[in-house]
Amino acid sequence: MPVLEDLYPSRIDDAVRLIPRIDPVIHGTGRNGPIVADDMARYEAQGFLAQSSLLTPAEVSDVNDELAGWLADPAVADLDETITEPGSGAVRSIFRIHDLHPRFAALARDPRLLDAARQILGGDVYLHQSRVNFKPGFAGKDFYWHSDFETWHVEDGMPRMRALSVSVALTDNLHVNGPLMLMPGSHRTFVACAGRTPDNHYKASLKRQEYGVPDHDSLRTLATQGGIEAPIGPAGTAVFFDCNTMHGSNGNITPFPRSNVFFVYNSVDNQLAEPYCGLTPRPGYIARRGPVAPLGRQDA
Amino acid sequence: MPVLEDLYPSRIDDAVRLIPRIDPVIHGTGRNGPIVADDMARYEAQGFLAQSSLLTPAEVSDVNDELAGWLADPAVADLDETITEPGSGAVRSIFRIHDLHPRFAALARDPRLLDAARQILGGDVYLHQSRVNFKPGFAGKDFYWHSDFETWHVEDGMPRMRALSVSVALTDNLHVNGPLMLMPGSHRTFVACAGRTPDNHYKASLKRQEYGVPDHDSLRTLATQGGIEAPIGPAGTAVFFDCNTMHGSNGNITPFPRSNVFFVYNSVDNQLAEPYCGLTPRPGYIARRGPVAPLGRQDA
Repeated sequence: MPVLEDLYPSRIDDAVRLIPRIDPVIHGTGRNGPIVADDMARYEAQGFLAQSSLLTPAEVSDVNDELAGWLADPAVADLDETITEPGSGAVRSIFRIHDLHPRFAALARDPRLLDAARQILGGDVYLHQSRVNFKPGFAGKDFYWHSDFETWHVEDGMPRMRALSVSVALTDNLHVNGPLMLMPGSHRTFVACAGRTPDNHYKASLKRQEYGVPDHDSLRTLATQGGIEAPIGPAGTAVFFDCNTMHGSNGNITPFPRSNVFFVYNSVDNQLAEPYCGLTPRPGYIARRGPVAPLGRQDA
Repeated sequence: MPVLEDLYPSRIDDAVRLIPRIDPVIHGTGRNGPIVADDMARYEAQGFLAQSSLLTPAEVSDVNDELAGWLADPAVADLDETITEPGSGAVRSIFRIHDLHPRFAALARDPRLLDAARQILGGDVYLHQSRVNFKPGFAGKDFYWHSDFETWHVEDGMPRMRALSVSVALTDNLHVNGPLMLMPGSHRTFVACAGRTPDNHYKASLKRQEYGVPDHDSLRTLATQGGIEAPIGPAGTAVFFDCNTMHGSNGNITPFPRSNVFFVYNSVDNQLAEPYCGLTPRPGYIARRGPVAPLGRQDA
């Protein structure tokens, strides 16, 4: 495979660099899909778009029931795809849910999600990653600021910024229960991080990040220029966000748990190369390696 | 000293008890002071009252300047009254600020605070405790749910619920930077905690609570019946809250630090007895022992 030029070098030395984004945010015309023009403009400017109650209460209830049934199976905790909380052993995340459970296979192909992703990314897409996250009440840990693209580029070999995540809330997103926070406009700047990545650190990094961590000055710059927003809304609310939007979440001492489903759509024209850090690729359930065929509504 | 009946027993065995409040929330007529009747009714019902911009921007700026000058003195970090962050050694709190710094001596006697406290508590008051808290950006720790009165009763010997705190924000209270959270209506119930208190644990407990911690079921009950509110507002915003209102705060990964001044006013008719736990009283800079004369505007 020919070596691609690294347009977004990170973790190559001890320097921090702010690199202006080269790639567009909306790929193609942006006119073909369910998102209205004003919302597309908002997504382009801010790097994210919240859509309140994208799933109906009945749909949320149905998903939660199926999820509870699935978690009751003790085999789930033993899956490679399952990440547990340090200490308690409680399930914190399950990856590759679109392959492991038919309800999530269907949700990933729901036109409200898939067609929106196609509209933003300009054509056919596939699932780079999917997961469900559980943030328990009383002791939900924080998740520090990061750009997903920084990790996907360095550790997975994603060449360009042509991917997005959609987070669908399965519980109410309140101000007080550690909601997803995003920095509007941060998707325009790639924060190249200092340090080098050790091999096979992914298992630990899913619990606590140590590499690819943005420095304080860069975060202060991004937060000062665009602020910080935390979209709230009832269960069923979806947040679409660009792969390079800086985001994180505070801890949660409230009794109100927070759980979300994440789907990461990547353009089929942006499939993974070798990791730019030169290390062993992460496993397929964290970063799907190709070639992968386009995700369609008829393929389930 | 005659032994007082313990109306609010806590940490006496392994049982959790929910004890209805015996004391009034508003003591006396509640009509003599700066708080309007609607706000007094709100305080009585909810157990707290937020007043946006109680201090003007110029006053906040002045306090912050004096505080920065004070903290620049290396002797401050060595005071008994100063609590540092585990690990970094950064100053997290300074106690007894109304005695240690003239600006805070004046602020504690400001009629907007003192006369409001007198109005709620029904007459003369003194300062049980005062402190300034610094919650840094990026790594501000959470502060778990607690009733101040539980601690003041068990560890300090405060007989009845006739005290309140006022927190004055010295930075903007945002939804995202770990603001004070309170459970409306929780002041009506005393959550007696399980476990016993070891002697002299106060130094550690100011950093991380281990005793007097409410159980999950009680917190879920209180949060479900009244919800959780986090008053936000610009620097200078004050929150008055009853000594038994359940409160806490999430951590803060944002670059925006949070600092507050706290004054705890107690009725002169509610001065401290021996600690109900039977242990050594905490030091005077954490819990002023009496007899203490009323705080007045002319005594500075």
